Amino acid sequence: MQLVMIDDKFVDSAKVDSAYFDYGTFFGDGVYEFLRSYNGKIFALDEHLERFQKSLSEIEIDGIDIDVIRKRVLAVFEKYNKPNVKIYFHVTRGAGIREHAKEGLTPRFFLTIDEIEDAGVYHKTGIKVISVPDTRWKRCDIKSLNLLPNVLAKRVAHRQGCAEAIFVDDKGYITEGAASAFFAVFGNVLKTAPLNANILPSVTRHFTLQLASNVGLKVDESQVRISDIAKADELFQAVSSKDITGIIKFDDITIGDGKPGKYAKLLAEEFEKLVKER
Amino acid sequence: MQLVMIDDKFVDSAKVDSAYFDYGTFFGDGVYEFLRSYNGKIFALDEHLERFQKSLSEIEIDGIDIDVIRKRVLAVFEKYNKPNVKIYFHVTRGAGIREHAKEGLTPRFFLTIDEIEDAGVYHKTGIKVISVPDTRWKRCDIKSLNLLPNVLAKRVAHRQGCAEAIFVDDKGYITEGAASAFFAVFGNVLKTAPLNANILPSVTRHFTLQLASNVGLKVDESQVRISDIAKADELFQAVSSKDITGIIKFDDITIGDGKPGKYAKLLAEEFEKLVKER
Repeated sequence: MQLVMIDDKFVDSAKVDSAYFDYGTFFGDGVYEFLRSYNGKIFALDEHLERFQKSLSEIEIDGIDIDVIRKRVLAVFEKYNKPNVKIYFHVTRGAGIREHAKEGLTPRFFLTIDEIEDAGVYHKTGIKVISVPDTRWKRCDIKSLNLLPNVLAKRVAHRQGCAEAIFVDDKGYITEGAASAFFAVFGNVLKTAPLNANILPSVTRHFTLQLASNVGLKVDESQVRISDIAKADELFQAVSSKDITGIIKFDDITIGDGKPGKYAKLLAEEFEKLVKER
Repeated sequence: MQLVMIDDKFVDSAKVDSAYFDYGTFFGDGVYEFLRSYNGKIFALDEHLERFQKSLSEIEIDGIDIDVIRKRVLAVFEKYNKPNVKIYFHVTRGAGIREHAKEGLTPRFFLTIDEIEDAGVYHKTGIKVISVPDTRWKRCDIKSLNLLPNVLAKRVAHRQGCAEAIFVDDKGYITEGAASAFFAVFGNVLKTAPLNANILPSVTRHFTLQLASNVGLKVDESQVRISDIAKADELFQAVSSKDITGIIKFDDITIGDGKPGKYAKLLAEEFEKLVKER
């Protein structure tokens, strides 16, 4: 019979909420999504659900019906009844006595919905970022709950007055942000890391690349060297919560004239149009 | 106001147990320890607490008094009142609305105590292992809750009838097991990976190296190449739950005569003596 202690109290394990035995906590054994609505419409629900299905499959969590997830997201959105919301949800392998590779657990679903702040202020001011070594695991294409390196990177960034940390690999190439995709503009060429096991297939990244030609940018999916940052005409990030936001400072380097660049602005406008059309 | 959904139910977020908002679940943002008692005495409590303190410090969780943790472990051990137990505990950064680098959270402590099965059967039969690519993050010296690669590796091992998965890095060198330290014997030389950011400073590893000279082994802290496994006279793992356990098969390679080797047995005996003495 297992005995449990929570903070300084002994607790009968039968009376403890199963959340204390969630494999999400013991192992980060789960995957998540984050999506938002604009003006009463959820944006890119299919794309997020498709990625979620892939994440589940990669970590071998079976028996989740994506249509059920879809219905839950739509139901919560209807019930919450606000035009601009952010929705977070995760599925973990289940709850039980801790054992690395336990079979037969029942997956657990958890979701939160909140109003989302307008990203307009970020679009106007831009953000500052710092670079940090990319210490993450080798399957960052999976949107998993193993996010400690991202947390630690964000903490370093915040301490230095920066909104985001940008990961740089062993060879000096930029992978992506701790919670965003990273883009650099050189002349009329838009560079971002190609999708591979080190890169999250960001939904906003996908649409950004699709919109690039509308603003006269050629896409080059190749990694940017950190040593080339000073030569970039523009930098920006793409992320569901703030769509396309200019980067005005990278470490000690002021980017362009220290204001969000023209392509970041044009792409944010294109993105706004896309959001209305979909 | 945040709305929450758990499985298919809407829940008032004020009524949800705070465990659902644990940063352990959202980010794996916490660290843990696992230790055991032998015949009514907790083994190596100081060593485990020292490592725990280091893990906390590395991920910047402040304000935890290790003496309080020590008292809790001793109190739960006394209350449980069994001679052979396993104790798991973790501290997470806290609970709250999900935000990567939130400040000011109150760390959360969670502990379980259970009876532990006797490792004698493993010592007799030995275990089979398989190799898997080491996809973990670059700070495996921290005993963190980011354990998804370990879970996935263990799942592969179990499906193939193996007790443990052994991580192999990009260059073909063995780092360690998914939940154990790894050792190889060549002649009278005991090899194991040196401690660095890719290796957990295993407490059982520490004592194994200390005991090596008692059984006539010379220690060489250098990594074993997977291509040298077939030349090894013996392999074994070291882990708190099963101390020193011989490995009888590694992938398709039968080790020695397919039974636990003499040094594994001698070291397990030495370990038993040490446990009694401490």
